[in-house]
Amino acid sequence: MNFIDFSDVKITGGFWKQKQDMIKNTTLMAVYNRFSETHRFDALKCDWKEKGEYEAHIFWDSDVAKWIEGAAYILSERRDAELERLIDEAVDNIADNADENGYFNSYYLTTRQDERFTHRSDHELYCLGHLIEAAVAYNEATGKDKLLKAMCRYADYVEKVFRTEQSAAFLTPGHPELELALVKLYKHTGEKRYLELSKFFIDKHGDNDKEKGISVYPGMFELSYNQDEVPIRERSTVEGHSVRALYLLSGAADIAAVYKDKALESACRRCFDNAVNKRMYITGGVGSTHIGETFTIDYHLPNRTAYAETCAAIALAMYSRRMQQFGNDSAFADTVERAVYNGVLSGISMDGKSFFYENPLAVDPDFNNVNPATKEKERYPITERLEVFGCSCCPPNIIRFLASISGYIYSFDDDTLYIDQYIDSVTQKEDFHIRQTTCYPADGKVKIQCNCDKKYLALRIPQWCDSFKLNKDYEINNGYAFIKNPGNTELEIIMDMPVKLVASNRRVHENAGKIAVMRGPVVYCAEAADNGKDIISAVIPKGAEFSLADTEFMLPALKVKAMRPKSESKLYYTAGNDYEQFDMKLIPYYAFANRGTSEMTVWINRGF
Amino acid sequence: MNFIDFSDVKITGGFWKQKQDMIKNTTLMAVYNRFSETHRFDALKCDWKEKGEYEAHIFWDSDVAKWIEGAAYILSERRDAELERLIDEAVDNIADNADENGYFNSYYLTTRQDERFTHRSDHELYCLGHLIEAAVAYNEATGKDKLLKAMCRYADYVEKVFRTEQSAAFLTPGHPELELALVKLYKHTGEKRYLELSKFFIDKHGDNDKEKGISVYPGMFELSYNQDEVPIRERSTVEGHSVRALYLLSGAADIAAVYKDKALESACRRCFDNAVNKRMYITGGVGSTHIGETFTIDYHLPNRTAYAETCAAIALAMYSRRMQQFGNDSAFADTVERAVYNGVLSGISMDGKSFFYENPLAVDPDFNNVNPATKEKERYPITERLEVFGCSCCPPNIIRFLASISGYIYSFDDDTLYIDQYIDSVTQKEDFHIRQTTCYPADGKVKIQCNCDKKYLALRIPQWCDSFKLNKDYEINNGYAFIKNPGNTELEIIMDMPVKLVASNRRVHENAGKIAVMRGPVVYCAEAADNGKDIISAVIPKGAEFSLADTEFMLPALKVKAMRPKSESKLYYTAGNDYEQFDMKLIPYYAFANRGTSEMTVWINRGF
Repeated sequence: MNFIDFSDVKITGGFWKQKQDMIKNTTLMAVYNRFSETHRFDALKCDWKEKGEYEAHIFWDSDVAKWIEGAAYILSERRDAELERLIDEAVDNIADNADENGYFNSYYLTTRQDERFTHRSDHELYCLGHLIEAAVAYNEATGKDKLLKAMCRYADYVEKVFRTEQSAAFLTPGHPELELALVKLYKHTGEKRYLELSKFFIDKHGDNDKEKGISVYPGMFELSYNQDEVPIRERSTVEGHSVRALYLLSGAADIAAVYKDKALESACRRCFDNAVNKRMYITGGVGSTHIGETFTIDYHLPNRTAYAETCAAIALAMYSRRMQQFGNDSAFADTVERAVYNGVLSGISMDGKSFFYENPLAVDPDFNNVNPATKEKERYPITERLEVFGCSCCPPNIIRFLASISGYIYSFDDDTLYIDQYIDSVTQKEDFHIRQTTCYPADGKVKIQCNCDKKYLALRIPQWCDSFKLNKDYEINNGYAFIKNPGNTELEIIMDMPVKLVASNRRVHENAGKIAVMRGPVVYCAEAADNGKDIISAVIPKGAEFSLADTEFMLPALKVKAMRPKSESKLYYTAGNDYEQFDMKLIPYYAFANRGTSEMTVWINRGF
Repeated sequence: MNFIDFSDVKITGGFWKQKQDMIKNTTLMAVYNRFSETHRFDALKCDWKEKGEYEAHIFWDSDVAKWIEGAAYILSERRDAELERLIDEAVDNIADNADENGYFNSYYLTTRQDERFTHRSDHELYCLGHLIEAAVAYNEATGKDKLLKAMCRYADYVEKVFRTEQSAAFLTPGHPELELALVKLYKHTGEKRYLELSKFFIDKHGDNDKEKGISVYPGMFELSYNQDEVPIRERSTVEGHSVRALYLLSGAADIAAVYKDKALESACRRCFDNAVNKRMYITGGVGSTHIGETFTIDYHLPNRTAYAETCAAIALAMYSRRMQQFGNDSAFADTVERAVYNGVLSGISMDGKSFFYENPLAVDPDFNNVNPATKEKERYPITERLEVFGCSCCPPNIIRFLASISGYIYSFDDDTLYIDQYIDSVTQKEDFHIRQTTCYPADGKVKIQCNCDKKYLALRIPQWCDSFKLNKDYEINNGYAFIKNPGNTELEIIMDMPVKLVASNRRVHENAGKIAVMRGPVVYCAEAADNGKDIISAVIPKGAEFSLADTEFMLPALKVKAMRPKSESKLYYTAGNDYEQFDMKLIPYYAFANRGTSEMTVWINRGF
């Protein structure tokens, strides 16, 4: 299975054109400016002095790298001399400050020169991975190869130290990312040693005595945090730091696909099943706890303290996409869709300028830190997005992800062209000509003009879709509607998109007696900003009818006659005629907290 | 308003005879043995040496004192030479080891001789308070006065240091208790200086600059923790450490009643209203958080992490009882009843041998500490009662409280004899002859034989009771049914005791969409031990009918046709015909966790 590259698909209208325009016109430079102000670009000069204005940080290079990668995706559509000047300046600093071996890390080169490759958890190889992804993207977008050459040299040095000599203090990246980046570098350069180095890391993770003895943060974390406990091929569950786990599994899926490694593929499938069917929020968020930013156990999905890092939702989409390499099944693109429209997009404000690192499914600000007798504060996610935070991995990750989202639309094998996502767009590739016209997910209607010499054209029928009309004969297989010999054709699929009430498995005690409201792939939430306080106490009655309302946040809001307890002075009272009707308004979850701090809930009491 | 003393009312049968027999036959010596093993009695010898077997603790004297007080209440019914020998041994150690001033504290006299009266929060005066209560009780029960004399001497010394000279490092007890004990000592001895010393403390709490500057545990607690922030007369809310707050308010109510201090009475009334109508669990538990064991804010009543210390429920009962001194209103005895049958009794196992310090309203053991990647553990209440714990204030507090519970049955003023609690019992007092025959709260029928020369006999109509039959004419006033000129009479009241579903104020977000099941004053809960796992996900349908079942735990269990989600493999699914019926069994909340660790919930999803 192959994917049509994002650069061969131009998004032409609808929901995603708006989002990409926002990224291009606002977010890109907003993040650049915040990163400049916080000296993330200055740090690349490696001229830091003690008692200077700033001190470089172990993961700052990766922030800049993801920003360059995102910028490159935007440049691939249209070159921009001023933007390239900013990037080239950074590239010059990176390439020119690399040492004689090709090694570059703005933190270790300045503040801890003698400690290179001794602190496994300190993101050195993670930064390299992101710099490689940036180098490949910038080379593809502009043809410029200074960063690419520098990163190849650095990767060669890593190969020597880690694989050939095994002379570093550790064997594999403490924060995976390099694994998948090396596969990208291999595919871009054709140099098989990068693939082999990636495979080396994938094979060694959790399967070596050297790292079993390294405790990352003694007394705090177990081996699983850093993906060291179990060899990947033996895993059946996603464990530890959620972004580390899913970046590693993304690399593992790439390696399994290239090497046709069935044991590794099976492990990837088992872990995907575990992540998606036992440990994922309805928003596609993963990682239930801030403590270690980790997965916890099956069905443990607290809403108010959900960690659900934006980067983890992106990583889940990346991993799900790579799972398609083993043969298509709509569960993979369904998961991408769930994450993208909910747990990823919630990470960025509607104006494109501020961000959530964590994406809780409930906010109850009146009851955060309510103990006036103690100075000790309980930890809750912040209630408003910020322009920058200390650990600013998410903002540039959103940029690069949304700027290249058109790479998630199509996949193909010898027989079949798959439409994985419905996005208003046109391909710009020789072998396929396909145009989608749609305002999905505002509604479920998609027009598809197609000239395709594949035996089949396959349209994903989303998991949320119970009924649809398609103006051609089709056969359903693995969640896709297969149309035989499509040739030069005009298709129209109309997916019914009613509001649906979704319940969760009875083991998810957090959601007991509650339902979530979805329309199409979009999860909705109720905010106090629309409904007044105590919206968490409201109930959606059985058989309640929803109507579409304003589109303040790009997609229609929903209205429903709901019930809530009367304003009752007693603390406890006999249940009876104690609820009254009110007009509840729901907005897309991704749009919560765009009007200041507000009580919010995704899961709403079910009126049975 | 006065109370008929516990020693004048003998419990003769029913629920409380069983409980008192358990305390007398099992709990008293079980706690004695645990206290002996842990050297709490040894410590009274004050011969502790460094590197010895144990080190005395700042509050051990209070543990022993409460045990003596409880034992004394039991002795007041029937003397027991062996038990008295154990007490006398302790008394000898206490009296003989007091210093030349009368000062006694087994911790300060041994390990920190030079630091007497310098650490306000270290329970010195708290220990004295409990020793005074023990001394009064033991003197009343046996006529022996060694402990009483020793404690009078100690109290005199405290008066000198704290009131006359004001030479201690602080002005008022960091952990209130002495305030109410001094009123007891005054009433027992007739010595007004003890009353005045109590009033001095009540007046100074939160109303002096000396203590405003003392930070108890720097960086952790605010002034309100130790009741130092606001003068009592200015308070409208209960704040800080819940036991400290309620012991202090109990003392304040006593002082307000004796001195007819209207400002203090008003403050007591406001605080009672705040505690009971905004900050109390349905079980009568108070103190929502383990952090500082404190009250938090109105309507913040988390169930699974509820602190609701057994001692705090006892303190609420003590405070509520004292509120009756200002004139009777059934709200006071209602609160006593709520606390006693639920949040107090839950603190002791059915066999009388083990105890809860915390009394959560939900237990979800499968989802406690679910993060395999970190060593950091989240804090949840323990899931099974223990025979002893480091801070063992609750076990002897239960003994003394339940052993003297007959003191909560009657109150009187010039005109009226009030029946505050329905307990099978007979008075043994000259002026009143009254016998209650009842198995309350197994049902709501109470026979009352009475010979009373008061103008009125008043029967409390409990807040849970919507209808009752009474075989005499009556008039309802302040929640009591007043019967005029009762004379020599035989009464029968039959209170209908259907199962009731109780909802909470919409501000209590924890209980949104949920109901609690009560029968009479007793709160019920559902345990996995009866219902299987995921009982938290079950729903009680609208109009469901309950029936009474076995009485394994003294009162009938309840059965109801409830619904729960089908065992469904999907994590999320479209809500529809997804629930199935099952027989739910509920047991009295006080009986939870008597069959090992089990998922448990008081608040159950409401089927509307």
